[in-house]
Amino acid sequence: MSDLPYTAGFEAPCLQEQDIQRLEEIRRKCSAKIVLATTLANSGHPGGSLSTLPLLLGIYCGLRYRVNEPQWSDRDRVFISHGHTSPGTYAVLSEVGYFDAKEMLLQFRMAGSRYAGHVETDVPGVEWSTGNLGQGLSAGTASAFAGKLRKASYRTFVLMGDGEQQKGQLAEARRFAVKFGLNQLIGVLDYNRLQIGGKIQDIMPQNILENYRSDGWNVLEIDGKDFQAIYQALRKAYHHEVADPSRPTLIAAHSIMGYGIPFIENDHEYHGKPLSKDQAKEALKILGSSEDINAWLAEKQKATIATSHPEIEHEYPHIEIGTPRLYQSTDALDNRSAYGNALADLGQMNNTTQPTVLALTCDLMGSVKMNSFAKICPACFVECGIQEHHTATLAGRLSLENFVVFFSTFGVFGVAETYNQLRLNTFNHANLKLVCTHIGLNVGEDGPTHQSIDYIGLIASLFQIRLAIPADPNQTDRIIRKVACLKGNDFVGMGREKAPVVLNEQGQPFFGKDYEYIPGKADWLRNGSHGSILAIGPMVPVALEAHGILQKQGIQVAVLNMASVIPLDIQAVWSAAQLGPMITIEDHHIQTGLGSLVANVLVQQRISVPFRKMGVSRFSSSGKPNTLYEHQGLTAMNLAQNFKELLHQR
Amino acid sequence: MSDLPYTAGFEAPCLQEQDIQRLEEIRRKCSAKIVLATTLANSGHPGGSLSTLPLLLGIYCGLRYRVNEPQWSDRDRVFISHGHTSPGTYAVLSEVGYFDAKEMLLQFRMAGSRYAGHVETDVPGVEWSTGNLGQGLSAGTASAFAGKLRKASYRTFVLMGDGEQQKGQLAEARRFAVKFGLNQLIGVLDYNRLQIGGKIQDIMPQNILENYRSDGWNVLEIDGKDFQAIYQALRKAYHHEVADPSRPTLIAAHSIMGYGIPFIENDHEYHGKPLSKDQAKEALKILGSSEDINAWLAEKQKATIATSHPEIEHEYPHIEIGTPRLYQSTDALDNRSAYGNALADLGQMNNTTQPTVLALTCDLMGSVKMNSFAKICPACFVECGIQEHHTATLAGRLSLENFVVFFSTFGVFGVAETYNQLRLNTFNHANLKLVCTHIGLNVGEDGPTHQSIDYIGLIASLFQIRLAIPADPNQTDRIIRKVACLKGNDFVGMGREKAPVVLNEQGQPFFGKDYEYIPGKADWLRNGSHGSILAIGPMVPVALEAHGILQKQGIQVAVLNMASVIPLDIQAVWSAAQLGPMITIEDHHIQTGLGSLVANVLVQQRISVPFRKMGVSRFSSSGKPNTLYEHQGLTAMNLAQNFKELLHQR
Repeated sequence: MSDLPYTAGFEAPCLQEQDIQRLEEIRRKCSAKIVLATTLANSGHPGGSLSTLPLLLGIYCGLRYRVNEPQWSDRDRVFISHGHTSPGTYAVLSEVGYFDAKEMLLQFRMAGSRYAGHVETDVPGVEWSTGNLGQGLSAGTASAFAGKLRKASYRTFVLMGDGEQQKGQLAEARRFAVKFGLNQLIGVLDYNRLQIGGKIQDIMPQNILENYRSDGWNVLEIDGKDFQAIYQALRKAYHHEVADPSRPTLIAAHSIMGYGIPFIENDHEYHGKPLSKDQAKEALKILGSSEDINAWLAEKQKATIATSHPEIEHEYPHIEIGTPRLYQSTDALDNRSAYGNALADLGQMNNTTQPTVLALTCDLMGSVKMNSFAKICPACFVECGIQEHHTATLAGRLSLENFVVFFSTFGVFGVAETYNQLRLNTFNHANLKLVCTHIGLNVGEDGPTHQSIDYIGLIASLFQIRLAIPADPNQTDRIIRKVACLKGNDFVGMGREKAPVVLNEQGQPFFGKDYEYIPGKADWLRNGSHGSILAIGPMVPVALEAHGILQKQGIQVAVLNMASVIPLDIQAVWSAAQLGPMITIEDHHIQTGLGSLVANVLVQQRISVPFRKMGVSRFSSSGKPNTLYEHQGLTAMNLAQNFKELLHQR
Repeated sequence: MSDLPYTAGFEAPCLQEQDIQRLEEIRRKCSAKIVLATTLANSGHPGGSLSTLPLLLGIYCGLRYRVNEPQWSDRDRVFISHGHTSPGTYAVLSEVGYFDAKEMLLQFRMAGSRYAGHVETDVPGVEWSTGNLGQGLSAGTASAFAGKLRKASYRTFVLMGDGEQQKGQLAEARRFAVKFGLNQLIGVLDYNRLQIGGKIQDIMPQNILENYRSDGWNVLEIDGKDFQAIYQALRKAYHHEVADPSRPTLIAAHSIMGYGIPFIENDHEYHGKPLSKDQAKEALKILGSSEDINAWLAEKQKATIATSHPEIEHEYPHIEIGTPRLYQSTDALDNRSAYGNALADLGQMNNTTQPTVLALTCDLMGSVKMNSFAKICPACFVECGIQEHHTATLAGRLSLENFVVFFSTFGVFGVAETYNQLRLNTFNHANLKLVCTHIGLNVGEDGPTHQSIDYIGLIASLFQIRLAIPADPNQTDRIIRKVACLKGNDFVGMGREKAPVVLNEQGQPFFGKDYEYIPGKADWLRNGSHGSILAIGPMVPVALEAHGILQKQGIQVAVLNMASVIPLDIQAVWSAAQLGPMITIEDHHIQTGLGSLVANVLVQQRISVPFRKMGVSRFSSSGKPNTLYEHQGLTAMNLAQNFKELLHQR
């Protein structure tokens, strides 16, 4: 157990003289670990680790946490937004007992190790994997917001660098935190005034404190090397002893990059560069450490890396999904409305005793059909404003706080604008349900800047996310109810316009009462022996119409609805290819969509059939979707014609 | 010609009474056009158009522009950041004579028309296509920065909505404008306090004016319905009669959504909803317009849409590219350094008399090797801070101001983080040279959050952009010199580590003095009759090594370097496929990279060969690239083994 002075929840009014002495000792010990870790790896970020170290130690003087139960639900949360300070974070986490320092020192930045260059959740005590700057505060607001919703008492700390304050996403996060009165959120700024390229004043001057004040935060300014000042500021923020107790607080701690090692202090070169062996020796001496760098180097040569780590298991709520709604052709509904209805049902069933299903949007409640949900459970509807970057990260982290989280906006804003935030979410094993509306040319008159025709290309470039495009309101209903129950990330995309109910050959809804959506399973809407059409979304009715046209000419073409794009139903593609010519048709960029995924299946299986992709080959103009489809050749007539051409190629 | 009161450059000290009367008349006339356009299209955004209208008219009272020469280089620039106010913009542009109002009224939001739902540069007088909120100020700073660099006298106006102020990118743009003293930049805020979902105060409270002040802007607050106040504020900002004349100015104009039509005033429903026919009739009456909505509707039925529009022709500089540098194996260089050297050469040759080649980065000058360039031509090196979203838009717009613009950062920040900004750049026919370093697992110890393994999947989802991955320092040199001369957008990607010089079979540099990079042309590094390996980037040496291993076993495999990924050398893929089994290998997500593009070529040509893709199938850890490659099976041994397996499948 650590010697760190400690009173849970910052109960002690101040540190005693001997506490400060002990903290200074521990600081030197941890500083030595920072030096060792980076020099042994010959890689890493000592500078910021050393300036952040006193702040992190200060936090652990009062933090409520359980080393043996890192996911304890009432723990205070600590987010490391400047993930490159991993050596400092690991030093403190090992100091307080999460793991053995030796293991970390030998494995830091080694292939296969969990002690990565930027903090990752594989390491116990790390709440959120970071590395791309500017996202940590958004993730922290998620935990603070979750606590507020649940009336929990835990606090959320977000340690941040000063360079990353330049990222616009922080401004979005600040406003969100104020709007929702997240007074249990405490930002801690390592204000060393240097970034990788030099002085902040030279790289990008910024009045950070005024930025926070202008957004309504409390700001406490302290000497970030003075443990008493650090403790007292943390204590004040923790107990809401600030100018406006209803609001979040920033502790701006003036610090020194490379603190404690005079010959690298205030030198931005050591932001991302380790000390040489000789420098490290000298530094260890200054820090009063007896560690022998040569002995460590020898040991590192022999070290083996444990390449598999236990995955963090976040809880995922068990929810009621109720009875599916069955829509008839006469309902003339858009898929968005079916989504809104299903979401409202989920809210109705699961949010009565406690908040479980959350719905987030960015100023598009009406367009994404969250109105009913918002009426039924207003506390669980979260209006985030036109702040997509923040909201994507917020939603991702919220989905690890034991909620079912739906985030909805237009496809362009939910995928193209926030792709990198989604990427980090998936890397964090989030469980986000991203439901985007207005995808494809189907967005209509809003025009090309709003044409989301890349959602497959982008999402297929991620790992650990499923992608579904429902064909009609019934399938939308079933998909929404299904993904709500599934752990992991899901993207569900739909257009803006009304989507006719898909009927079976008996004229009944194909996706009837008994239909269940299974990821990875395609729907054989029509059988046929002459070949197949594989379609998604608004192209499904086009495919069915083409089927009818061809049937009248004696050509029987199978029609498959590939609603589950990721995972793709490979077996169905094989079976369809056995029938003969194959065409894929989609309201998506022709180069990176369904057609491309299907082509990859075919070529890898060495299936040679006449094959054609139909899709979007340029941005369209503003206009009615059907006219835009005509302009790009995405019509039933053209599809039928293409199929006949392929038949002749056999 | 318009009746608009006008003195070029806001020379007149104030408006006269009759000027104001005339402006009120014109406002009503333009308001009627807004109503007509949206009601006729049954779609569009009347609310914000009406509140912005007086501001736009005010600007055109003093703007220096030439209707017959929209691209006149000394013109004052006007950016419409809230692109949905297109009906208001079109009304004013037609009023001042850019085009016939009737054409616009009949074609607004019709498929194929240039009068899109959000302003597009197809329409003369529009500087930048917008629609995704929050990007306009960044684009405007580009023009203002260009003017400053060239010591030009023109001013840049950016009209903005208040809802979009929530986007973080604005904070980035504000800081950039202050850092570079862009005092010829004038932001004009349509402060109607409503956004699509309701009151700003409810959706996302924000202290907009304090945000601007905290970032160092001058702020003028006016009544946005009072033409005299509008004129005087614009005049002050235009002539630097503000608190700090060295800084940009925001004019915050308090306005009314739906202004001038009492029954929709301050109703956020009409942000994005047209008036009904009856409402429009009533509105036209109130506005004193004699237009007959029924007659217009009848005419609209018959209207034909001109679907092809002249593309805007921006100038692109002619530059010297000098003599290629030839690197030998002994140079042991990374591609980044070769890029840095070529860039320095371009700066040296082209920036002596006037700035022509610009280099932008986001706090990564050293890592992306812009140091030499920055030393040679410091004024042309633009350090943008950790503000990638702003910088991507800035760089895109700058590339249309007659500069050759290189923007460099790590792949993760230059592609994943800014994808949507790149998308809008390509849609704006930009000429950006985006050169990203540290792509792939090659980023090494920085770990998975920094692993850019989706650059092909993402960029292939765009239009109008080329993508090249140089194999070695020599090819890097040639590619950089080539893309500098090409109009249009280019992405060039490279890893972090040293890249061995690729040699021909005679042991000489393959990319020698006489080599010229041609987009769309693959390099046959080795011939072979038993099949082929298609490789890019750091996998090229791996492929060459596998070639050697196989050769020793009597197997002759051709090795192709597919440096030009977009456009892909389809002919080379066909030819290679004739040889037999084919393997693609890349330091990229296996699902959406080179292998996928090649698979698409094969299947569409019905070429059936044993085919295998090798690439990245999960995020790797931190570590040395070669170890990470081993973990993912991306080794020469494994590649050779795979090839032999395919041979047996023939």
